[in-house]
Amino acid sequence: METYNSLVKKVGSNDILVGILGLGYVGLPLAVLFAKKGVRVLGFEKSDNKTKHVNDGVNYIGDVDDADLHEVVSSGMLQATSDFSRISECDAILICVPTPLDAFRKPDMSYIESACTDIGKHMKKGVFISLESTTYPTTTENFMLPIIEKYSGKKHGVDFWLCFSPERVDPGNKTYKTENTPKVIGGLGEKAIDLGLAIYGKAISHLHPVSSPKVSEMVKILENTYRLVNISLINELALLCGKMGIDIWEVIDAAKTKPFGFQAFYPGPGIGGHCIPLDPFYLEYIAKKYKFNLTMINTADNIENLMPHRMTIKINSALNRHEKSINRSKILFMGVAYKPDIADERESPALRIMDEVAKKNGAVHYNDPYIPEVTTEEGRRFASTELSDELIREMDCVVFVTNHSVYDVQRIVNNARLVVDLRNATNGIVDNKIYKL
Amino acid sequence: METYNSLVKKVGSNDILVGILGLGYVGLPLAVLFAKKGVRVLGFEKSDNKTKHVNDGVNYIGDVDDADLHEVVSSGMLQATSDFSRISECDAILICVPTPLDAFRKPDMSYIESACTDIGKHMKKGVFISLESTTYPTTTENFMLPIIEKYSGKKHGVDFWLCFSPERVDPGNKTYKTENTPKVIGGLGEKAIDLGLAIYGKAISHLHPVSSPKVSEMVKILENTYRLVNISLINELALLCGKMGIDIWEVIDAAKTKPFGFQAFYPGPGIGGHCIPLDPFYLEYIAKKYKFNLTMINTADNIENLMPHRMTIKINSALNRHEKSINRSKILFMGVAYKPDIADERESPALRIMDEVAKKNGAVHYNDPYIPEVTTEEGRRFASTELSDELIREMDCVVFVTNHSVYDVQRIVNNARLVVDLRNATNGIVDNKIYKL
Repeated sequence: METYNSLVKKVGSNDILVGILGLGYVGLPLAVLFAKKGVRVLGFEKSDNKTKHVNDGVNYIGDVDDADLHEVVSSGMLQATSDFSRISECDAILICVPTPLDAFRKPDMSYIESACTDIGKHMKKGVFISLESTTYPTTTENFMLPIIEKYSGKKHGVDFWLCFSPERVDPGNKTYKTENTPKVIGGLGEKAIDLGLAIYGKAISHLHPVSSPKVSEMVKILENTYRLVNISLINELALLCGKMGIDIWEVIDAAKTKPFGFQAFYPGPGIGGHCIPLDPFYLEYIAKKYKFNLTMINTADNIENLMPHRMTIKINSALNRHEKSINRSKILFMGVAYKPDIADERESPALRIMDEVAKKNGAVHYNDPYIPEVTTEEGRRFASTELSDELIREMDCVVFVTNHSVYDVQRIVNNARLVVDLRNATNGIVDNKIYKL
Repeated sequence: METYNSLVKKVGSNDILVGILGLGYVGLPLAVLFAKKGVRVLGFEKSDNKTKHVNDGVNYIGDVDDADLHEVVSSGMLQATSDFSRISECDAILICVPTPLDAFRKPDMSYIESACTDIGKHMKKGVFISLESTTYPTTTENFMLPIIEKYSGKKHGVDFWLCFSPERVDPGNKTYKTENTPKVIGGLGEKAIDLGLAIYGKAISHLHPVSSPKVSEMVKILENTYRLVNISLINELALLCGKMGIDIWEVIDAAKTKPFGFQAFYPGPGIGGHCIPLDPFYLEYIAKKYKFNLTMINTADNIENLMPHRMTIKINSALNRHEKSINRSKILFMGVAYKPDIADERESPALRIMDEVAKKNGAVHYNDPYIPEVTTEEGRRFASTELSDELIREMDCVVFVTNHSVYDVQRIVNNARLVVDLRNATNGIVDNKIYKL
């Protein structure tokens, strides 16, 4: 009780050091935000490269403002280190590490495990610990807690307090950033929730407490499962509409006029990024333990797994109009990022389509203003080609995979022989040479 | 061209008679709205009972204002008839007939067919015809058009013009009524679209034209398929959460704080009403013709088909706590309407649960302030019991199936021995005797 009260007091007087484990697209914006709000932050990263960048005030995350980072580093409010023994200095520890899937699409818990081991080994008495990484419900209580208690020899509810508070970062979102996106906090016990509210409240405008970590773990998965399922639904309907000669984009635009009970999702070549293709499978993993089949996720997965292949078939059908095969055709992919205007090609369906086209002996080229080079899942390496009218004219087929807003679509269409548009990039342009999803 | 210009002129000078076929929950509000806006309406109904009600100014539809109906009938702006030969008087004909599924869940097109036959037999030259009933894409062009041309001997684009403009009625919605819900209009050709805009524009605030009837047919099905799929997803997640000891309602409340990319759906005992359980299967029907399996709809259907059975198991599990069986237990169902505060039990899952409980020899009682008696799918008949503290105290189990807002939930819980809550009606009440979905 004394330990708890003393921590509450330190939090109240803002005399705390917040440790953030992982300085990626979640951790760095959070670190900069806390520092800007007058809370001292120590960022932990295994990568010496990243800690050096941060300590030099050099920004590497799209959603972080360069000047903001520079300012909080100069003022000493934010420092980065790869020395995890310095966890011992921290009063609050926020874990923002990756939770990928392994090659068999099972949760790879090694980053969380490693973070918990480091914390257990080095933490002092009287700290608040929060996990932000998406994971399956029960992780905080059944996976993290035992590791931390084992390595620290300390006891939850006496020496430390544990929360799960999922990150909701939407990379590239201009309206909702870390500060103004409401944050859900599920603590292990009321004291943990209260600490979570007090600490996160220093940086984030709106907090929503829930009764337990497993509720907040489920919240994050519900949000992204909702997206997976709806993208899959619209992708499947797009394929049917293609067969029926119905423009799915026109359908969605019209359905969107319904002022209640509808939210528009758009079809595309498949899901990408670090959330939607992963999060639902964390839930599927734990559901197995309860002898429960998540049939909606499963069906959505079946659709998404096939989308890149179906897009290859679209390219093939388009070329077929010109009496061409993929084999020996020059095909230019416009955009390999998994969504527009960001520099992130993780899980991007573009890479899978490029692999498939390359295997069929198509000559693969790509352009992406944000991504100079890529390595595909199958290990092929490509470099972004500079766009020019000549290049476009040379290509047998130009494929819009990502609708980066910088593209001059009309000009590209004018110069192209054949256009396959998987994103409605050519919206409003009527031209026989366009072949749309 | 002369016929078209003459119709356009009549529309322009408001010198038209609008015929509305079907005076149900879609047709009657539409008829009253047109009449209120100063357009003369002739309503057609096979049911003499309904035409008598309308002509007597007696309202029978929840979304119609009694005074409005009375006023437009008294002033002669709205008249109802069961004499379909009077279609010959109409300049615009709007079809608002049912499109149910048959016992094998295939589209029952008989109402549309009958409407088109009547129209073909009696229509004059120079009319606008619009179908509002939800149906599979291609219906207007490939099903309706040939019937009308055959029975009328008249030609589309010369003698008449055809649209599909789906109704979007949400019974009981206090904010969005026929007038202020944007309406999608898909005409067969530009002239049909222009006529549709001119005629519907007299009554409805916002119109959204699309390029063809099949696009607007798909719009309506997309809207309701979206709902089916999302309700099924949340129902499946609710079942898993039940097993994991996670309160799904708390999860949804928290997820709802995400200000982008999420729309909340709530679990329940299964889908009901005249839209969500039906519309997606119209699409499935036509998809078969294109050798296309709609796997998302199929999966959703599998979940929903089982929900009432799973709810029976919930009741069984709750009774089991009290060492009771369904057999010989007195079970009171609160609400049989398919959604709160309306008098419509079509396709309501309550009826299927009542059938199942009755088959297991449970003593079935129900209360619904809006529905005095019901006949279940299996032909059982029940009458609504009056609510009293004594009644509640007598029951072995009280089941909230529909959360009508008039229910005094706290009082019911206080008097009940055991409560099974399938709608979060008991939100905020903590009591051991509540067993929640």
